[in-house]
Order: sequence, then C-alpha cells, then structure tokens
Amino acid sequence: MTQCIAPRSGVAFELSQGQVLEVIDPQGEQVADLVAFSRDDLNEAISSGRSIDYASKIFLTTGDSIYSNRSRVMMTIVADTVGRHDFLLTPCSADTFRIIYGHDHPHRGCHGNLTAALEPWGIGPDQIPVAFNVFMHVEVNGQTGELRVLPPKSNAGDHARFRAEMDLVIGLTACSAEQSNNHSFKPIHYRVLNAHEVP
Amino acid sequence: MTQCIAPRSGVAFELSQGQVLEVIDPQGEQVADLVAFSRDDLNEAISSGRSIDYASKIFLTTGDSIYSNRSRVMMTIVADTVGRHDFLLTPCSADTFRIIYGHDHPHRGCHGNLTAALEPWGIGPDQIPVAFNVFMHVEVNGQTGELRVLPPKSNAGDHARFRAEMDLVIGLTACSAEQSNNHSFKPIHYRVLNAHEVP
Repeated sequence: MTQCIAPRSGVAFELSQGQVLEVIDPQGEQVADLVAFSRDDLNEAISSGRSIDYASKIFLTTGDSIYSNRSRVMMTIVADTVGRHDFLLTPCSADTFRIIYGHDHPHRGCHGNLTAALEPWGIGPDQIPVAFNVFMHVEVNGQTGELRVLPPKSNAGDHARFRAEMDLVIGLTACSAEQSNNHSFKPIHYRVLNAHEVP
Repeated sequence: MTQCIAPRSGVAFELSQGQVLEVIDPQGEQVADLVAFSRDDLNEAISSGRSIDYASKIFLTTGDSIYSNRSRVMMTIVADTVGRHDFLLTPCSADTFRIIYGHDHPHRGCHGNLTAALEPWGIGPDQIPVAFNVFMHVEVNGQTGELRVLPPKSNAGDHARFRAEMDLVIGLTACSAEQSNNHSFKPIHYRVLNAHEVP
C-alpha cells in the first residue's frame, strides 16, 4: 500500500531484512531525506563517509551499497529510475534556514522532522547522520569544489528502491528546503515491498 | 613545542577556545585525520555534512569554518599553505584495509588509532565522525562522481592552522593508508599556539 508523506514532514517505521523500500516522487522535482539505523543497535547508522569511500564515487545508484558506521551493508539500491541523488549534505534544519536562507523564524526542516519521527525509538537529534538525499541534485565542480543545489531530475512517478540488508529503523521525509525542490513543497510517496513482491 | 605523531599512529588532547592547532607535514605528501568534539558535551562533534552545506563547497581552506552537528562553529581555518584537503571520506580503518586493499590481517588504521587515543574521554568507535583529512588530495569528477585518492599536494614544512572556537577534545593521526600518502608512511607534526603567539 502506498503511503503519503505530506509536504515538509517526515515519518519513521521499521523495515525487516529482505524488505524493499520504494521511494516515489509523485509530482516530480521533490527530495526525500532517508536515514537508517540498525534495529539491533541504534548506534549503528548509515555512513556517507564509508559508503562513498568504498564505492569510490559520490553519486550512488542501482547496485550500490549504503554502509553503516561499522562498515556493514545496511541497504542496497536495487532500482533507480532517476540516477541522481546526494549523499554529501546534512538534512535541512532550523539552522539551515537561519544560516543559508536568513529566516528569523525558521522551519524545523527535515532534521527536526526526522528527530520527531524517530523519537519513539529513542533516537535523538545528535544521532541523525548525513542522509541519503533521494532525488536531490547537487552539482559538484570538481575543480573549485563549489556546490550548487539544482532542481531534482525526477519526473512524476519516478522512484528508487532500497533493499534492507539487516533489520532497520527508517526515517524518511518530504524535504522542507526550497532550494532542493525548485521552490515548491510537495509530498513524497513510499511503499514497503516484501521479498516475493519484488520482480 | 612541536610534537611528533609517529607513522600510522594517533593522539588526542584538549584545546581551549582561542588556541590554534598547527598541523605540519614534516616530510611532504602525508595526511592527518582531524576530528574534534565539544569538551562540554562530547555528543557534539564536527559535521562534514553541515560544514560543506554552509560553505557551499567541498574544499575548505583559510577563512572557512568547521561546524558541529549542532551547527555551531567549532574551528576556523586561519592559515593553510597547501589549500587542498578532504572532508568527504571516513578515516581509514581495519574495514578499509579489508574492503579496499584486500588485506587479511588489516591494520586498525586512523579509525582504530583515533578510537584508542580518545578512549580516555569515553569516546567510542561509533562516535568517530567523518574526519577533516588535512592535506588529503581526493580528485572529484563532477560529471561521473568518481573519486580518486592522489598524493597530497603538501611539501615538507607545509602546514594548516585551526583556531578553536570552543573548548575541544581533538583527535589527530598520521594517516595509515597507502593511497593517501603516496605509499610511504610518514609522521605528522603539530603544535598548539596560544592566542598571543599567533601573528
């Protein structure tokens, strides 16, 4: 069953080893921040630094692994109709809106939404790692190092699938930052597929 | 007084607000992994995701800030005779040597050295963040996302200086990974300067 994450909000749920999380962009040009923790020990979480290091590339897609801070494979990307995501930037937060956007009364952002959604598992704000930012399009200038956040390459209905390689607690958002989604807050859809439902 | 970190080892020490840490490459082409924690609350640590996001670039140098996972400035780079460092990759670890190098009996790497050095402060292996990898030269292909670890651009005597913007616990290594230092393990030197000693 397809679930909807309302614009500028987030959810958390458990995923069992072998299940597949499908993240869908229902309208196009929207970003979903994805974090994952090991259900057996919540101190184990996804690690951008290890995943990027072991892949020897910053853009991950079908066939690539998302590693934990203990170098275990937490998720494998098993389908990807977009092919461009970000794994460098922190989830947007009240600080993002204050520092980058200059807002006086900032939204809590994906970081606040993830923290609220993950609170029932006892996961606090300091534990939120760099997210795998599904559909986020960050241009990287390899010469100067400059980054630019561009509109996602996703069209309506595009999706990416993540197979759980261990039992996980997942946090997932419909991104709250204007730059990420071309200045239009939109929902994100997702569904959980059991092993026998995946082609 | 200049201190020496022996090849393939690491140290930890406290740095007070206003003090400046100078990291020196005594022989050239060596890397030092640098991590920092707030002395007031060790759950606050440097964050590559936030630092890169707020700087809108992946290569930091003189004048740039290193932010914490709570979006506070922990350190400012106040001098840099090299201009190229890495803030994407995880410290090398036994896992690195197993996964990337195929070693059967892997060295514990910078991650193991940092963990051992920081143990007296109660900082455990899961808390080691993506390090600021001083002098590490990672080539980034902005089109494909491909990463290549190249020999550092540092020559003998090159240095970078980091001013503490809060009271810190620092972890610092002489990197243990062949790729990072052009296949020659070398020491790293460092010294701590008080505010009045900095020009």
